[in-house]
Amino acid sequence: MELRVALISKLREIPDFPTPGVMFYDITPVLQDAGLFSDSIDAMADAFRAEHVQKVVGIDARGFLLAGPVAYLLKSGLAIVRKKGKLPSEIIREHHELEYGRSSLEMHTDAIQKGERVVIVDDVLATGGTARAALRLVENLGGVVVGLGFLLELEKFDGRKKLAGGHTIFSLLRRC
Amino acid sequence: MELRVALISKLREIPDFPTPGVMFYDITPVLQDAGLFSDSIDAMADAFRAEHVQKVVGIDARGFLLAGPVAYLLKSGLAIVRKKGKLPSEIIREHHELEYGRSSLEMHTDAIQKGERVVIVDDVLATGGTARAALRLVENLGGVVVGLGFLLELEKFDGRKKLAGGHTIFSLLRRC
Repeated sequence: MELRVALISKLREIPDFPTPGVMFYDITPVLQDAGLFSDSIDAMADAFRAEHVQKVVGIDARGFLLAGPVAYLLKSGLAIVRKKGKLPSEIIREHHELEYGRSSLEMHTDAIQKGERVVIVDDVLATGGTARAALRLVENLGGVVVGLGFLLELEKFDGRKKLAGGHTIFSLLRRC
Repeated sequence: MELRVALISKLREIPDFPTPGVMFYDITPVLQDAGLFSDSIDAMADAFRAEHVQKVVGIDARGFLLAGPVAYLLKSGLAIVRKKGKLPSEIIREHHELEYGRSSLEMHTDAIQKGERVVIVDDVLATGGTARAALRLVENLGGVVVGLGFLLELEKFDGRKKLAGGHTIFSLLRRC
């Protein structure tokens, strides 16, 4: 509960970023606070500790900041989902809707082994379009998504519904 | 020494990416290997453990993957240097030369407190242009850079010279 209060006090709301009408939730003040960063990572790793996770997948780019330490704590490998054109080797691609437009995400075909138990990590769950694209990428490579972890979930966008399946959806903080 | 050999076996060289004539070093196979990822993070954190680091700065975007767990292990805050237009709050900016063109990097003005002891982390040190821009950003905000950490250093580009100063430059692997 104390973690939730600390997160509320540190998350920064920026109206009209990156485009007019969008409220951006800036997690950088959370990361910059050593104790809060550490507590947030511990809580996210704890949520998946019983799941025998073999790979944590970070979503480009802020998801990387959380996925790295969570993978380290879970003693799992770390894989990445990137925006178009960033990955240099053989890839698969998924298109998805953003709150502010359309985009696509890519993953190296060797990033996930068939049957691997995977947790997907990002900073914010809003409409769920990005996370769902990541989920599809992992599943298309034969991975078993056992969970998705977010620092902040914005409930009004109902993103959780887009991610329904046999996996845990864990958010450190849920807001309307 | 064993870590060095494992890194050599896993780093993937991709010619002509992102532009013709450039050799890209892909660290994703290193991250995907749980043991090698963990050993690499441990070694980088150990290199700075005596430095009383207060903030680890990750460089957009692959630097984030290493900076997060290193910050966690050093019990420090995590700050980020981003490519142009990605940070939503008040920023400072530095221009720099890449191996393949010009670009600029930005940092939130509240990312570093005056006098804070900082380590900057990225995946690859090549020409040093990116790392030098990050060094300037941190110093312009009043931070004291005690070290820079890289997974791979490409010695032929002499990037180390661009970063000279009173700080440690630590690379897990140095190649010609």
